[in-house]
Amino acid sequence: MGQARVLVVAATHGNERNAPWLMEQWRRQPQLLDRAGLDLQLEIGNPEAFVANRRYIERDLNRSFAAELLADSSRTELEIQRARTLLAAFGPEGRQPCTVALDLHSTTSAMGNSLVLYGRRPADLALAAGMQARLGLPVYLHEADAAQTGFLVERWPAGLVVEVGPVPQGLVSATICRQTQLALEAACDTLAAAAAGRLRLPQGLQVHLHQGSLDLPRLTDGTPLAALHPQRQHRDWLPLQPGDPLFWQLDGAGERYRPEVLELGSEARWPVFINEAAYGEKGIALSLCRRERWSCDRSWVEALGSLVQTAGPL
Amino acid sequence: MGQARVLVVAATHGNERNAPWLMEQWRRQPQLLDRAGLDLQLEIGNPEAFVANRRYIERDLNRSFAAELLADSSRTELEIQRARTLLAAFGPEGRQPCTVALDLHSTTSAMGNSLVLYGRRPADLALAAGMQARLGLPVYLHEADAAQTGFLVERWPAGLVVEVGPVPQGLVSATICRQTQLALEAACDTLAAAAAGRLRLPQGLQVHLHQGSLDLPRLTDGTPLAALHPQRQHRDWLPLQPGDPLFWQLDGAGERYRPEVLELGSEARWPVFINEAAYGEKGIALSLCRRERWSCDRSWVEALGSLVQTAGPL
Repeated sequence: MGQARVLVVAATHGNERNAPWLMEQWRRQPQLLDRAGLDLQLEIGNPEAFVANRRYIERDLNRSFAAELLADSSRTELEIQRARTLLAAFGPEGRQPCTVALDLHSTTSAMGNSLVLYGRRPADLALAAGMQARLGLPVYLHEADAAQTGFLVERWPAGLVVEVGPVPQGLVSATICRQTQLALEAACDTLAAAAAGRLRLPQGLQVHLHQGSLDLPRLTDGTPLAALHPQRQHRDWLPLQPGDPLFWQLDGAGERYRPEVLELGSEARWPVFINEAAYGEKGIALSLCRRERWSCDRSWVEALGSLVQTAGPL
Repeated sequence: MGQARVLVVAATHGNERNAPWLMEQWRRQPQLLDRAGLDLQLEIGNPEAFVANRRYIERDLNRSFAAELLADSSRTELEIQRARTLLAAFGPEGRQPCTVALDLHSTTSAMGNSLVLYGRRPADLALAAGMQARLGLPVYLHEADAAQTGFLVERWPAGLVVEVGPVPQGLVSATICRQTQLALEAACDTLAAAAAGRLRLPQGLQVHLHQGSLDLPRLTDGTPLAALHPQRQHRDWLPLQPGDPLFWQLDGAGERYRPEVLELGSEARWPVFINEAAYGEKGIALSLCRRERWSCDRSWVEALGSLVQTAGPL
């Protein structure tokens, strides 16, 4: 087995144009990306959707990596086939196996430069803690959400999503590109340190634990009766208290945040993915988190180190 | 012939969601819109594209109203058929004729609340001057652009586009909705004043005259070599001087504004539609204008007044 390799994916959603724009530049001028010595595999996630400048063609590629979908030969949607192709080529058992997957996204929400994890795998927590120590990136731990499964990075031994916004779909923004590159370089630096046995984590990792999602008030036919309240727009990562304005109606009415709707307590919650354009069809106006600070555990570094070291020197 | 009626169109582009969101609210609660006594015909421009949440299905509806396209029976694209349908129903010679067309758009550019005119029809200038006097809206006079023709409002005796941004495609923003409603109510107030013979215009109308458009630097295969410079992003309506940063490359290189590219003089130009997501496919990174102040002419008011008065009382 050769070097531990890192899969970097852009345009998993075809209308998120910043990471693929960067990837094209890195391919043309490799010296523009500081890889920290890592062997990176740069891939366009959904080439057909990228050409069409659409999120997806038949279904969301980043909800198409559930094991049961991949194993079901009757499922032949373009994105499920693409998921199988990516795994056959670059999966942990693939022809050119990669150990870590970094999936570069953008959002219309004001998430800033941020990370999304889909569980509590120790190696992922080490990577996130290393990136948070380097750049201060907030972390959204998107777990225990039965309505959303099958994320790409879950099929690799370690990996996470870099999520940068706000930027409209279909648009390249220099600022968003620079943030994306900074996050990827911080990931490379963290992974190289882990491979060299010199990764030091901070004392704590701040995480935002997914608690649930709220949709706009709608008629039974799906017509929205309200919009997001203007005082909520672009306020991702800022605490939402019971009674705070949440939705807005043209007649001046609206709705305030009532935690009992999600059976949440009366403490503040931290919203993420506020008014993400692609989530309207998923019935999500925003998601709510609990903010916690975890002590970084020595075992996290060991888990990440053993993954990237056992494959040989990076 | 009955009252002079005003056609109000939302979702001429199916992924511009703010005006159709408003329209749904106005239909459910008509009292929420101050029509100034006018008889408004509220229409979704491109219903198929709206359902698909795409700008268009086969071609841009707002480039499909050229007389030669409409007359060519061999042209059967969905949007050309839709243009014919709208004209047959609500055109000046239609079954329910409308005299004025107001076309409500949104943009990813930071245009604020603004107006677009496609020529120098006196009635349009009166309407724009009345709206500018009420709300201070900047005016983009998009004329003499051979690359772009066939705009909807050109087929009605008077009309203009309300263009509000920045907002991502596919997204409803309360702020954008409020601006859109303010512009429409200012239009209604202006038209009602003209119909009643009491429209008073300010001394001058500030206009931004289209001079040309610039594309990103690209490879011959279309791949962009640069992005818009971050110092240019969201700076619509602010003067661009020769030598100002314009495009940005990852390696730190870039391009500055050189007026000779468009054979423009060395004076400042006013950019509009900076980094509009839908214009990438049109090869437009921004358009440049000359700012002028025109004296409002008495004949403008007469032209608008005769249009909306000859059809009977509003």
